[in-house]
Amino acid sequence: MSVKETTESGRTIHDYTEEPISDGRLHSLLNRVKYTPTGYNLQPHEFLVLQDDQKETLRQCAYDQDQVTDAAAAIVVLGNLDPAAHASSIFDDWLAKGHIPNNGVREKLLETVEGWRERSETENRIWTVRNTSLAALTLIYAAWDMGIASSPMEGFDADAVRESFDISDEYEPVMVITLGYAAETDWDQSKAHKSRRQPAEMAHFGEFEPEAE
Amino acid sequence: MSVKETTESGRTIHDYTEEPISDGRLHSLLNRVKYTPTGYNLQPHEFLVLQDDQKETLRQCAYDQDQVTDAAAAIVVLGNLDPAAHASSIFDDWLAKGHIPNNGVREKLLETVEGWRERSETENRIWTVRNTSLAALTLIYAAWDMGIASSPMEGFDADAVRESFDISDEYEPVMVITLGYAAETDWDQSKAHKSRRQPAEMAHFGEFEPEAE
Repeated sequence: MSVKETTESGRTIHDYTEEPISDGRLHSLLNRVKYTPTGYNLQPHEFLVLQDDQKETLRQCAYDQDQVTDAAAAIVVLGNLDPAAHASSIFDDWLAKGHIPNNGVREKLLETVEGWRERSETENRIWTVRNTSLAALTLIYAAWDMGIASSPMEGFDADAVRESFDISDEYEPVMVITLGYAAETDWDQSKAHKSRRQPAEMAHFGEFEPEAE
Repeated sequence: MSVKETTESGRTIHDYTEEPISDGRLHSLLNRVKYTPTGYNLQPHEFLVLQDDQKETLRQCAYDQDQVTDAAAAIVVLGNLDPAAHASSIFDDWLAKGHIPNNGVREKLLETVEGWRERSETENRIWTVRNTSLAALTLIYAAWDMGIASSPMEGFDADAVRESFDISDEYEPVMVITLGYAAETDWDQSKAHKSRRQPAEMAHFGEFEPEAE
């Protein structure tokens, strides 16, 4: 499917068929998220894939929304709160591939990113949410391109998710994405898109003058 | 271009040609961001498009990175910190199109979203960064699909950006995206991708056991 078609035809789905998603297809999907851009290529995203009974546990952490158990799978998208978690091996690779000229530059980059550990907890939460959200959207578009519908959810109790699935506080639960095959009733392309703000309202050329509503 | 090709062939670009992007193409690009998913469809994103001399001003806010002025245009992607800024008209539309059954549901939704105004400043920053990042990545993929290269930047002084471009503190500067046509030197598809963490390392089936590095 083309990018244009994917971004324009995509709809958030809440009603799924009972068809499961094979493990092979889930692995293909996760593989397609690999090249998502992230700042400094630091890739803080992690995906916890929940199926079967575990979806019921997640539903209890998500205000009992039935789409969680109706979906074939649900993915908790987590963001590593340590910006430097993978920095060393990433900058080794840059040096090996000639993206940076020498080890001095590598050391300097590493020092910068390790320095971010000293930022406030809020700044590092914002950093990981920004970068992890990019990976989450790549997953949503890749899924749709594979014929798998999805729904991004931000309505869940992050602490309950942490506790239920034994996730340390070094990771931020950024988003839940439910995945499955869309029920025909919910997959009606003739149904009007929910309204979108118009480009003329969102785009500001040279001067920021948002419209009051 | 297909979604697969776009997500896999995209590279962050830092070297641009001197070719400008026409206003018509910039408008087309911004139009293609319209259908990006956001939580509750609340669409907090705003795009401040900077060209010509304004790029120099932005460069001063972005640690003098030359890609800002080398690019044909730079977009400051802003997130509205008020979750309910557009809620009323959005839920009116849901009601009109039958996405919700009656005005009681509309009132309840509005109450929920307006209630988010009482959350901490940090939670609302995280909310807008998460949702605005989705719009930013839709813009990056749409640009690439149109043959326009881009580079997402998080290295800038948000306060300096606010001051230079008269942006009120009701908006969070989430990301800067530079846009232009890639210089051939920087657009070498044979160049190895910077390394990516392997799916087996990022994907956790049923249990979250991140690998230590």
